[in-house]
Amino acid sequence: MTLDLEWLHTPAAAVDLDAREAAVNRQGELTKPLGSLGRLEDIAIQLAALQGREQPALGQVQIAVFAADHGVAASGVSAFPQAVTAQMVANMASGGAAISVLAREIGAGIELINLGTVVPVPAHPLIRDAVIDAGSANLAEGAAMSTEQLVLALAEGKAAVRRARAAGAELFIAGEMGIGNTTPATALACALLALPVVDLVGPGTGLDRGGIERKRALIERALTLHRRQLGDQPGNLPGGLPGNQFGDPLADPLADPLADPLADPLADPLADPLADPLSALARLGGFEIAAMTGAYVACAQQGLPMLIDGFISTAAALVASRLCPGAVDWMLLAHASAEPGHRAMVEAIGLRPLLDLGMRLGEGSGAAAAVPLLRLACALHAQMATFAEAGVAAQAS
Amino acid sequence: MTLDLEWLHTPAAAVDLDAREAAVNRQGELTKPLGSLGRLEDIAIQLAALQGREQPALGQVQIAVFAADHGVAASGVSAFPQAVTAQMVANMASGGAAISVLAREIGAGIELINLGTVVPVPAHPLIRDAVIDAGSANLAEGAAMSTEQLVLALAEGKAAVRRARAAGAELFIAGEMGIGNTTPATALACALLALPVVDLVGPGTGLDRGGIERKRALIERALTLHRRQLGDQPGNLPGGLPGNQFGDPLADPLADPLADPLADPLADPLADPLADPLSALARLGGFEIAAMTGAYVACAQQGLPMLIDGFISTAAALVASRLCPGAVDWMLLAHASAEPGHRAMVEAIGLRPLLDLGMRLGEGSGAAAAVPLLRLACALHAQMATFAEAGVAAQAS
Repeated sequence: MTLDLEWLHTPAAAVDLDAREAAVNRQGELTKPLGSLGRLEDIAIQLAALQGREQPALGQVQIAVFAADHGVAASGVSAFPQAVTAQMVANMASGGAAISVLAREIGAGIELINLGTVVPVPAHPLIRDAVIDAGSANLAEGAAMSTEQLVLALAEGKAAVRRARAAGAELFIAGEMGIGNTTPATALACALLALPVVDLVGPGTGLDRGGIERKRALIERALTLHRRQLGDQPGNLPGGLPGNQFGDPLADPLADPLADPLADPLADPLADPLADPLSALARLGGFEIAAMTGAYVACAQQGLPMLIDGFISTAAALVASRLCPGAVDWMLLAHASAEPGHRAMVEAIGLRPLLDLGMRLGEGSGAAAAVPLLRLACALHAQMATFAEAGVAAQAS
Repeated sequence: MTLDLEWLHTPAAAVDLDAREAAVNRQGELTKPLGSLGRLEDIAIQLAALQGREQPALGQVQIAVFAADHGVAASGVSAFPQAVTAQMVANMASGGAAISVLAREIGAGIELINLGTVVPVPAHPLIRDAVIDAGSANLAEGAAMSTEQLVLALAEGKAAVRRARAAGAELFIAGEMGIGNTTPATALACALLALPVVDLVGPGTGLDRGGIERKRALIERALTLHRRQLGDQPGNLPGGLPGNQFGDPLADPLADPLADPLADPLADPLADPLADPLSALARLGGFEIAAMTGAYVACAQQGLPMLIDGFISTAAALVASRLCPGAVDWMLLAHASAEPGHRAMVEAIGLRPLLDLGMRLGEGSGAAAAVPLLRLACALHAQMATFAEAGVAAQAS
């Protein structure tokens, strides 16, 4: 494989504004007060625009769960041992994990993509072997991955979308499994949003207050380290590829001679070398986060609606939205994660959660749980009678 | 039928605390961080306690839609003409209404109970003819219904629960249709919660600001009228039956010689004769609201879990919770209505909405939309592997 990042330049597909308008008109004719189905009306209209038909449907839903380990887990940022990543992938394959149950119940296809764990994952028909390395490197000590690894991970996400489309998917869900991965997700969000770590850090799978405090300090040190390293090698991705080419040109510190990467980056976020999405992803992310980013960009480019899950997924969606600004049109957000930093990312992307159930499991579980609501929205839109058909008097005003 | 209200005295069935504890323990063994499924864990545990088994299930769901017209519609409190009530019942029967679509999609049984409309409802196999009168009287001018009518309506709700149980229902949903019925529901909430009308009144199906203002003034005048009339006949229901016997004895104005029903009732809610739930229901309610109240009390007495819908349903649930204090244990609240007064009722009862989608349609639509989530909660609880079964390491701490 060549070190191909060019595909990331392809813009998002255009949404169908005619289909959207037809769906808006239909909503106004259905036998209910206009707006009384709330978000269910919005969903039907958005899906009409994305699927290019007045009456959208979500028959085939495809779930891709990306799994990888994270070197930063060695720094004690998770309540679970790192071996659990591989154990949980096996549990997903044998049908016992939350996402396995949910996929069965909603009749979704599911595949598990192993991007590399510390303890090897056993072979299984449902598990795709896409191992890049035995986990990413510790982001507290250096770049989480090389540019070569970043390219491979992004491409795995794109490939999963190609397979989903080949399977006839009308909706794509990315899930993830990776012990410790709220740490890279939080670090990414802090870098791209130029927000203080203390505003975004949280308990993940169950850290206590002391654990959260250690996680905060670790992420702060990591951000300082990477800003310094990027400042020493301005404009370069860790593997030597030119950085910043996909981001805002103003984010290149060389473009602004006044920008000092060692100064407080929050004072001028445009001067922060970590604001470049690919640089931040390689240095702070993980294989599964990079794969989800690639999948989200590919969904937008190929016009496949995607349902974003929780904290980790939204961090990947944030990177994708920076790489491919039109990607957000193709995103629906399933739920508000219980992880406190989720909201800031959600608002920055411009999404709105459908559910708020205090979930914080990952795996794509929150997205899968929201699928029945999307389907009900489509069914109501397609099957309700119009005022004319039912002989019901419309609103007087 | 005798004027039987005695059945309302039967207490709510007891929940199964052993089954609850077993479900709590099982949740702690499933392969996920404890609590990471959020409300889905709570739902499984509550349903275990209600169904008396460690692993609850929601196979058969029964929806009963109660329909009636309201004399107060003549006062211009709705954006729709009153004939729409009967038209929408026919639309529900022929499968074109939102609740018809939702019932089909979730595989729920549905029956429509016609308690009396201004325009007659055509005969149809799905429609139960339980006409009490051609709509209730105008609550702005006097009692909405006589005690005889109240007794009949309450009994219709109870009968619907009996039929649901005979059909094997594991969950009961009451929906409603009645042009103008946010006005009686708001009036009831103001009376029972001793809150000012301005805090609870809202647009219903789509009143503009002027319409809401007229609705507020109408409800305020009605509350004053009924407090005065009850003060003139202290302790009596409109039909002459002794009132207050089912409420708090302190609510009987005769019990407190200092209480003046003509004084500001908000200053001492216990002195308000409209705080008696049956008096308030007869004077301010409607046939469908009374029937839903009877259904909710019967569900609690017979141990059938009920899923409460939106604004009107919650007003009936509020009355039921005052008549039968243990009833709240058997209630789940599907969603937060967009009608602004909903939250005050919800908090007073002690419920918490599962969904918040800006819905305000009624018919039981919000409850039906939440059923898939309840089923997913049961499936996760029953089908997920335990840490021991899956060979996954549990949390270190």
